[in-house]
Amino acid sequence: MIELIDDRYYMELALQMAAKTSGQTSINPVVGCVVVKDGRIVGIGAHLKRGEGHAEVHALQMAGEEARGATVYVTLEPCSHFGRTPPCSDRIIETGAARVVVAAQDSNPLVAGSGVAKLRAAGIEVVTGVLEEQSNRLNEAFVKFISTRLPYVTLKTASTLDGRIASKTGDSRWITGPQAREAVHALRHRHMGIMVGIGTVLADDPSLTTRLPVQGLHPLRIVVDSSLRLPLGSKLVQNREAPTLVLTAAAADTGREAALREAGVDVLRCGSGSRVDLAQAMRLLGEREIGSILLEGGGQLNGSMLEAGLVDRIRLFMAPKIIGGAEAPSSFQFDGFSRMAEAIELEDMELEHYGRDICISGKPVRKEGSPHVHRSH
Amino acid sequence: MIELIDDRYYMELALQMAAKTSGQTSINPVVGCVVVKDGRIVGIGAHLKRGEGHAEVHALQMAGEEARGATVYVTLEPCSHFGRTPPCSDRIIETGAARVVVAAQDSNPLVAGSGVAKLRAAGIEVVTGVLEEQSNRLNEAFVKFISTRLPYVTLKTASTLDGRIASKTGDSRWITGPQAREAVHALRHRHMGIMVGIGTVLADDPSLTTRLPVQGLHPLRIVVDSSLRLPLGSKLVQNREAPTLVLTAAAADTGREAALREAGVDVLRCGSGSRVDLAQAMRLLGEREIGSILLEGGGQLNGSMLEAGLVDRIRLFMAPKIIGGAEAPSSFQFDGFSRMAEAIELEDMELEHYGRDICISGKPVRKEGSPHVHRSH
Repeated sequence: MIELIDDRYYMELALQMAAKTSGQTSINPVVGCVVVKDGRIVGIGAHLKRGEGHAEVHALQMAGEEARGATVYVTLEPCSHFGRTPPCSDRIIETGAARVVVAAQDSNPLVAGSGVAKLRAAGIEVVTGVLEEQSNRLNEAFVKFISTRLPYVTLKTASTLDGRIASKTGDSRWITGPQAREAVHALRHRHMGIMVGIGTVLADDPSLTTRLPVQGLHPLRIVVDSSLRLPLGSKLVQNREAPTLVLTAAAADTGREAALREAGVDVLRCGSGSRVDLAQAMRLLGEREIGSILLEGGGQLNGSMLEAGLVDRIRLFMAPKIIGGAEAPSSFQFDGFSRMAEAIELEDMELEHYGRDICISGKPVRKEGSPHVHRSH
Repeated sequence: MIELIDDRYYMELALQMAAKTSGQTSINPVVGCVVVKDGRIVGIGAHLKRGEGHAEVHALQMAGEEARGATVYVTLEPCSHFGRTPPCSDRIIETGAARVVVAAQDSNPLVAGSGVAKLRAAGIEVVTGVLEEQSNRLNEAFVKFISTRLPYVTLKTASTLDGRIASKTGDSRWITGPQAREAVHALRHRHMGIMVGIGTVLADDPSLTTRLPVQGLHPLRIVVDSSLRLPLGSKLVQNREAPTLVLTAAAADTGREAALREAGVDVLRCGSGSRVDLAQAMRLLGEREIGSILLEGGGQLNGSMLEAGLVDRIRLFMAPKIIGGAEAPSSFQFDGFSRMAEAIELEDMELEHYGRDICISGKPVRKEGSPHVHRSH
């Protein structure tokens, strides 16, 4: 197949650059930019780090004088406000670009259409909506955070075909194969926080770091631990590669809190009861600018987060195995619905292959029945 | 894409004809045949019904005099023995065909290579193994039955992503969507028997007939019912569209048996205990020339059949839903394995889409650990 050369052709490259930076821009969106003049790419750029130059700035810098009369392809509407950097729309106008092609509008209420308006007012031809969906998909977490100040939660679990995350004796090594397990580390790299329940910590003593064939970024390690049972000797306390934050309940022991703080672990009390209020926890994490969380269960925490409507996307790795056993733990442990019509459904479903395993992903949606019950955990 | 014309091109048509007849040849294999002369298809045929003409006979009949010097494409090695019909290899030799292209060797010990040998001895050029795998896949049930005299068992189940076939209150209408449910009726058409547990009958009162947009074939309805609890008023007894066979235990009540027989239901005692011996049941069904069975559970019977190693292929329809609830019944109810490494794995895995649902299929294989436990049910 010979690839056609049109606006999509260059926007694809801009999107590819944006995708590769996923995980390294903190709560900022990922953005790619390509500058094309007289049939040649003359500048490319991406937003690489929060607080530093935007994609357009890098690309126009590379283009230099060639930017005059050029077409600028950018995956997100250029900003029009002074933030940590000067407005990119001003920069584009200054360089004398003739045409700007935009994939998606900026969800940031400080931009939202005004970047495009500013460019048009300066006489620049602007085309919008080219590969819009792909750009929005890359910035799902940003779009949620900027509009709600809540973290975007991706629930990741790995189960057998009969929906179990371990055998009846608790054995879970391994459910999925090496490719699926490597993919999980790539997911960690792309999230700002990684969240588990204390049950998982006590059972597995995980380090919850990002282990890739190259160096990766470590998310904040978040443990839901209502009674502050996190052992001081656990890897989450001893291993300092990444910071650890414990979410606990109002009633938790203050002496235990002091000991954990002494060991370098941060502690945050969520809600007024004896259990962690998960909805409040999400608000507090949002205030701390944790814009995205990878939820790695176990089944109990997965079930509670799902039931509380706090999960934005599910990534369910499935190994082609059947383990059996009524007591074998489920990937989603919660009270469950009485009628099949009430079940949580996955919308926007995608299927991927990782070696012999598959990954089913989608957005969990309640179709009918009672609204989400916000329960403390 | 322009399709190339070669041996595979014609063999594909032969396979397509064989595939469409799946379900209508009883324990005989499905076979398609295409006769090609001077660049034109001059005859096509398929084996349509047990005891009637083979694919080659139909195709050569259509070709008439054109068969002389022609190439005969046939999906299964032509037979060399007198069975219910005269040997096809003799028929091919008589017509003066110049070349025979075969997909798969016949597994029938009465043929197994001798058909090809006979053709070659007569001076005909024979090519074998063209699209062999596709032909073997079509005749998996035949290959098993002809070599073991046991039925080929396809386990079909429909579950949520958390591996449940109903909610905690037993609601299962509907898990999957209309496309998946239609596919199940197509599976029924292609099997000689359909098997359920008495629990499913008592809960759902199913008719277990084949309901297609066009007329389909009904499999023998088989109920595993150790205590002969099948109600005389149930659809399986009252509805006479298909015959019903009850598999029961040695200890079952003879009065109940007489009443069922009186109502037109056949009864077969399997094993010596108070439960149906499933392994013996398969042998007895094989003796009755039931070459293929669609096992439609519930979870208990699915689990027992799987654990006993009596399942040849699993077709697991999965709806993108999460129902939750520890008591919600599993698709495979059995004791389960202690170690993940002991889990039953699906080999030869395939993934298909039916509307919003997926179907994961494969051959269940025990990788390590103890051998299959043959238990009575």
